[in-house]
Amino acid sequence: MSERKRRAGAGAAAAASASKKPRVSSAASYAESLRSKLRPDASILATLRSLASAASKSKPAGSSSSSASKALAEDEPAANNYIVVADQDSASVTSRINRLVLAAAHSILSGRGFSFAVPSRAASNQVYLPDLDRIVLLRRESARPFANVATARKATITARVLSLVHAVLRRGIHVTKRDLFYTDVKLFGDQAQSDAVLDDVSCMLGCTRSSLHVVASEKGVVVGRLTFADDGDRIDCTRMGVGGKAIPPNIDRVSGIESDALFILLVEKDAAFMRLAEDRFYNRFPCIILTAKGQPDVATRLFLRRLKVELKLPVLALVDSDPYGLKILSVYMCGSKNMSYDSANLTTPDIKWLGVRPSDLDKYRVPEQCRLPMTDHDIKVGKELLEEDFVKQNEGWVKELETMLRTRQKAEIQALSSFGFQYLTEVYLPLKLQQQDWI
Amino acid sequence: MSERKRRAGAGAAAAASASKKPRVSSAASYAESLRSKLRPDASILATLRSLASAASKSKPAGSSSSSASKALAEDEPAANNYIVVADQDSASVTSRINRLVLAAAHSILSGRGFSFAVPSRAASNQVYLPDLDRIVLLRRESARPFANVATARKATITARVLSLVHAVLRRGIHVTKRDLFYTDVKLFGDQAQSDAVLDDVSCMLGCTRSSLHVVASEKGVVVGRLTFADDGDRIDCTRMGVGGKAIPPNIDRVSGIESDALFILLVEKDAAFMRLAEDRFYNRFPCIILTAKGQPDVATRLFLRRLKVELKLPVLALVDSDPYGLKILSVYMCGSKNMSYDSANLTTPDIKWLGVRPSDLDKYRVPEQCRLPMTDHDIKVGKELLEEDFVKQNEGWVKELETMLRTRQKAEIQALSSFGFQYLTEVYLPLKLQQQDWI
Repeated sequence: MSERKRRAGAGAAAAASASKKPRVSSAASYAESLRSKLRPDASILATLRSLASAASKSKPAGSSSSSASKALAEDEPAANNYIVVADQDSASVTSRINRLVLAAAHSILSGRGFSFAVPSRAASNQVYLPDLDRIVLLRRESARPFANVATARKATITARVLSLVHAVLRRGIHVTKRDLFYTDVKLFGDQAQSDAVLDDVSCMLGCTRSSLHVVASEKGVVVGRLTFADDGDRIDCTRMGVGGKAIPPNIDRVSGIESDALFILLVEKDAAFMRLAEDRFYNRFPCIILTAKGQPDVATRLFLRRLKVELKLPVLALVDSDPYGLKILSVYMCGSKNMSYDSANLTTPDIKWLGVRPSDLDKYRVPEQCRLPMTDHDIKVGKELLEEDFVKQNEGWVKELETMLRTRQKAEIQALSSFGFQYLTEVYLPLKLQQQDWI
Repeated sequence: MSERKRRAGAGAAAAASASKKPRVSSAASYAESLRSKLRPDASILATLRSLASAASKSKPAGSSSSSASKALAEDEPAANNYIVVADQDSASVTSRINRLVLAAAHSILSGRGFSFAVPSRAASNQVYLPDLDRIVLLRRESARPFANVATARKATITARVLSLVHAVLRRGIHVTKRDLFYTDVKLFGDQAQSDAVLDDVSCMLGCTRSSLHVVASEKGVVVGRLTFADDGDRIDCTRMGVGGKAIPPNIDRVSGIESDALFILLVEKDAAFMRLAEDRFYNRFPCIILTAKGQPDVATRLFLRRLKVELKLPVLALVDSDPYGLKILSVYMCGSKNMSYDSANLTTPDIKWLGVRPSDLDKYRVPEQCRLPMTDHDIKVGKELLEEDFVKQNEGWVKELETMLRTRQKAEIQALSSFGFQYLTEVYLPLKLQQQDWI
């Protein structure tokens, strides 16, 4: 019964579209005609297999994108002028904290008081490096002495956060930023202050925030050809029904990642995710499907990166055809300014823009009434993106963005539903894969 | 290794609190002294077992709450003056649609045109019934004839939605409201219109929206002593790591619910959920832990109700001590006005308010700096709640709410972190369970 359902995705492709319009419009009949262009799945799979094997050899995969040549952070030369934090185990973070505190104690005993050397995280210090294709934090430190009216409070907060992180690590647990704040509301005043110092502490210790065992809340879900252990529990993501597996907030408890997928499909929204999960798309085209349900959260970004680094699979993105779709891609690929010090661990290079692209709207004849006019704000954001280095680097992206701004039209992934609810999984995506239509 | 971690929750209780304050304040030392009041787990478990067995015999469980006497909808007498929709299988919904359409065709052929009889969902028609302790939709229909300028458009939309639902059911798939809207943007105009007619169609067919296979997006997660099948995949919620299992958007694909839990712990926020999941609280006190991460979504409400109906377990709620915590409880228990026609399936009666209650702030000596002053808006919402029938019914709740409004203080669940990150799981909750301290 369940097995039957699993095969239904492929079988149903041949069946007549149940959501055909009463009167077949020319756009709908054209859309339906694309179905006949589909080659047998075996042929598409052969293409995907060679693509995946190329990607695992770290050769530039897919089309001529220049970004294909950028390396994963683990291959990067040692950074000199910018900060690179790394995942560290608890013992190592604990001993770094001990060293800091011992140094402070020595300094106090010798009558010099104490001071922390804190990397500056000012906006001017957060820059995009084209070579790395991500935002990094430049190496520049400032002193935070206790014996100074201007910094006494911040030095105290820093010491307190160091002690709290030490306690969390010793217990072997994970806490949220909110938990941390509530342990000493009087000192921290408001959460923005403990959050900021937490980022300072990450930089000072040279480790990721996950290594401090302070996590953000998770929103992401994953299904597909992936098994991994979440805190020791073996998870088979082909057996997670339609709801999927919630992506764990603490990436350091994820281990034993295994997969026979040929690519990773990164989806902007949960509606498209649900369609793909219910149709068990990953059984027709072996893949791992994940979404952060909108703006990517830290847990999902870490998880995607881990998958990419360990499995070396191509990552294809399915986002809305609007400036925010592209902006979301940029966060996955280049990071956000706020977390620039950790961009090496949070970013996934070389994500391909599969769709829905501005050129797809005409190519797939998405009906006029399913397109939306761009607002003034949309246009402003689009124009700003055109100036961003990560867009400029990719000629194809520039062209698509120019098309969007010229036509002043945007569309959601759901707009494809106008050709039938399963058009996305039965025609659009298979055809995209067959034609290797990503940039 | 993993087994060791599972037992860690109980073991760590004996260990010294790692997040003890440098200088032990009196509140902290009092809080720590509560730990000594804890009886052995076996004794607490015995209490919980007798409680669970009482609940499964549908006797009023726990304290003297009058709401304990209210029955689950399945035991309700047939409704006469209000609408009760029910879960229906696809064949039954399809045949109801067929009957409606055949009737319309007959009417057209006999020269009378066609018209739908649509239940009125006006606000004046949505009332709270104290006997049922939930909001219901009164039975009052209005005609929606096609041959009338005022209703022609809505009649067309209704026919279109009926045909789309029919198509979805025939394919055996599920779609989102957004998908539905995009199949005919020109006709629907905006999504609010297709959404509204979808609710009309639910009422007309007398079936839940889930039966129409049109689902909302899910945000809920669950862990603990529960196994169920999600679309045929067997899910063991004790093996879902810290991330938990995402609650499926389509409740009709959930089956085979089994559990050895003694109660269901409903949690408002994901930070507390994470703490409970990581500490494997459910292994110390067998329970099912779920959260909708804030405002309850339809999928989580349906899921909770299914658990309650099938497992007949007491439901204990852990929410913030503020008017919104109570408001969230009210949505789980009594439903929202918008979905009043489906309140029988969406609401879970007899949820006990475990904490964090206004009286807990003093009882557990939550430090002043971890409490927040209520804003004018908070106070307004609190006063409105005092007028709500579902609050008035429960004397204990009225008292708590009055305490909140008198002290003008609120606090989050996280405020308990001021006594140590694991105070929630090691002292507060076990003590609450031991003392059966819920209302």
